[in-house]
Amino acid sequence: MTSTEPQATPPARRRGRRPAGEDTRSALLAAAGEVFVEQGYDGATVRAIATRAGVDAAMVNHWFGGKEGLFAKAVLQLPFDPQQTVAALLAGDRADLAERIVRTFLTIWDTNEGGRFTALVRSMTSHDAAAQALRNFFQHMIFERIIGQLGIDQSDLRASLCASQLLGLGLVRYVLRFEPLASSDVDTVVAAIAPTLQRYLTEPIAPAAG
Amino acid sequence: MTSTEPQATPPARRRGRRPAGEDTRSALLAAAGEVFVEQGYDGATVRAIATRAGVDAAMVNHWFGGKEGLFAKAVLQLPFDPQQTVAALLAGDRADLAERIVRTFLTIWDTNEGGRFTALVRSMTSHDAAAQALRNFFQHMIFERIIGQLGIDQSDLRASLCASQLLGLGLVRYVLRFEPLASSDVDTVVAAIAPTLQRYLTEPIAPAAG
Repeated sequence: MTSTEPQATPPARRRGRRPAGEDTRSALLAAAGEVFVEQGYDGATVRAIATRAGVDAAMVNHWFGGKEGLFAKAVLQLPFDPQQTVAALLAGDRADLAERIVRTFLTIWDTNEGGRFTALVRSMTSHDAAAQALRNFFQHMIFERIIGQLGIDQSDLRASLCASQLLGLGLVRYVLRFEPLASSDVDTVVAAIAPTLQRYLTEPIAPAAG
Repeated sequence: MTSTEPQATPPARRRGRRPAGEDTRSALLAAAGEVFVEQGYDGATVRAIATRAGVDAAMVNHWFGGKEGLFAKAVLQLPFDPQQTVAALLAGDRADLAERIVRTFLTIWDTNEGGRFTALVRSMTSHDAAAQALRNFFQHMIFERIIGQLGIDQSDLRASLCASQLLGLGLVRYVLRFEPLASSDVDTVVAAIAPTLQRYLTEPIAPAAG
């Protein structure tokens, strides 16, 4: 969960009102959780979050690499940076791309028995801003970037189809706990679900985008 | 929404404490909504619901054809009886089965712009009993019955995979409103999603049920 984060070395110039250590990082996460839900992803500014946290705005870049990384950690509670993840997913063989995507998300969500996913679904069904945030993340930060690299038509439709199967899997595995999908091992689930995403990513899907 | 319901002719023998008209039906729906959420599908008895509604238990059969039909209307707010629906879905060509399933649910959920689906997701993420109820409905009442008729292996896994894609579609179309999936016409969505369900229903899906 902390593997890709910078260690607690302060940046060259410290301008924050708090020490640039774990306190700053925690204060930013707490403030971001509030501001993103209140304002939505687009409305929330780095400055507003830093002000709420009582730290300098430069700390957002230092600790989270920018607004997107802060959002991924604070709201989605994902232990990774979306851009790095997309790059890693695209680095391997394209024939196994869907398998890597499904495995990556399953492995993340499995680590705390789906508690993180359940919290996400709960927040997105009760707050429009959280729904917008999740849409922004899955559609724009993850799937449109991936599909953009594949150079294929109907990228928006493909992105939303991929999200529908991946989020539906999370819903059934962690929230509703349908058996055997709730307790199947990752390999079984990947074998069952990956061909669906592979089709959504690369094959003809619909006569026309509606 | 009312097309398959009996008209307000009272049953031959009236034993209820209220007239066997719309009042009875409404009282049963309200009571069922409470009791199913409190007790779960298995724990809720027809007698307990009727007592709460202040009517005779026989009114459940009269108005809803039994516990399952009452549940479908009161909790899932579905305008159909699950058993009749499964029979209708299975009546046509098996090659188009998945297409009929996707089209049926989409058409129902589309009628009130997904408000019904959104309410369902909200209740199931906040009440374990509602999650259990939904699991019971999708997995047992709908998909295991369909798959049972197909005579194919791994029926539980297939049922939960079908539910994952169908519920994920609802989540993305109505709750999260990913575009273009949120505003695509039914034909476009059916063309994109049906092949996924057809594979889950009839093709090899995983090396072994985990």
